[in-house]
Amino acid sequence: MPQSYRAKFINSLSGFKSANLIGTQHLNGQSNLAIFSSVIHLGASPALVGFIMRPNNAERHTLNNIVSTEQYTINQVSKEFYRKAHQTSAHYSQEESEFVQSGLSAHYIDGVYAPFVKESRLKYALKLQDIIHIKLNNTQLIIGEISHLLCENKAIQEDGYIDIESLGTTCISGLDSYHNTTRIKRLSYAKPNKPINDLHINGTSIYSIKDGLPK
Amino acid sequence: MPQSYRAKFINSLSGFKSANLIGTQHLNGQSNLAIFSSVIHLGASPALVGFIMRPNNAERHTLNNIVSTEQYTINQVSKEFYRKAHQTSAHYSQEESEFVQSGLSAHYIDGVYAPFVKESRLKYALKLQDIIHIKLNNTQLIIGEISHLLCENKAIQEDGYIDIESLGTTCISGLDSYHNTTRIKRLSYAKPNKPINDLHINGTSIYSIKDGLPK
Repeated sequence: MPQSYRAKFINSLSGFKSANLIGTQHLNGQSNLAIFSSVIHLGASPALVGFIMRPNNAERHTLNNIVSTEQYTINQVSKEFYRKAHQTSAHYSQEESEFVQSGLSAHYIDGVYAPFVKESRLKYALKLQDIIHIKLNNTQLIIGEISHLLCENKAIQEDGYIDIESLGTTCISGLDSYHNTTRIKRLSYAKPNKPINDLHINGTSIYSIKDGLPK
Repeated sequence: MPQSYRAKFINSLSGFKSANLIGTQHLNGQSNLAIFSSVIHLGASPALVGFIMRPNNAERHTLNNIVSTEQYTINQVSKEFYRKAHQTSAHYSQEESEFVQSGLSAHYIDGVYAPFVKESRLKYALKLQDIIHIKLNNTQLIIGEISHLLCENKAIQEDGYIDIESLGTTCISGLDSYHNTTRIKRLSYAKPNKPINDLHINGTSIYSIKDGLPK
């Protein structure tokens, strides 16, 4: 099985993946942006999010900046700018900002050194918590805790669920396929010997979340 | 922020998640099936797939079986049976099989002790390779290497990409929302100063993959 065939094949097996841009900034002020399909929820309390760093690629600029500044942003990729997001996967030099190269805009807020993606409709900043080395294939699991959050309020439902589909958030399959979604159903919490009910999407959050994460 | 609100909220932030059923079998022959939204690609060579195990839930039956047998299956959830898949998240006792309770069917092949989900259109068996403890929130990253694979051949493209959308594979947002997908585009490998091209979906794999993973 040729290596390129194998990479595309195996990358398809885990199912659909999240599409996120990770924003960082070098201590010298140089911004950096890279697309990742491996961002994963780790826990709600504390609010921990992880992603996988491959051993040999341009994404190392991202890791170097995270290690030196201990801050980064995760920005959901929506259908309006998925092509620009994909362009950030090209191998640019340390001196080139993927913001400039991709045509996306950096957005800064007080208290967060790393840049957000202005075009992203759901984004948050993280403080580095741990880097776990996976010896089997020399990858790393980078774990951060959410410190600041920016989300369009209308997407946040009464029960806390965020309707990310309404934000145009995309997902990825394999290495290079981008997808829109269409909700089938929200389902109630499953219990033995009890039918599952459909949940409805209509409310708006009672919480107003602008740039901080409620406790 | 109430705990239930917080769980739904934070679970929405990572973006869309994969929808997979993990099949295991106790040494006494009792089968087990549980839905996970945390299955993640870790590497193509070796073919490694991971998932996150929470500290306190019914999924522990899954972990106990994986530790004792070192084998498990991952089965993509398609739209035809997403409600049955969701039902496996109910807290059943060790003596009850989620196959029976959900109405899904177990399928066994030579060389794999754990059951596959017959209804799943892309599924594979794994050999346990490592369990990494994440101290920050007492979760575990379970890592396996793919040993056997069952996939409808027509979904496998000439370049190795598997068109999982054509298999009706679903994705999940938050804790309980199931989604179909619609491909926007496959995009070419990004390079600096070069426009991204669209890739087309039409071919069929030159590889015939029935129950083993080519090297």
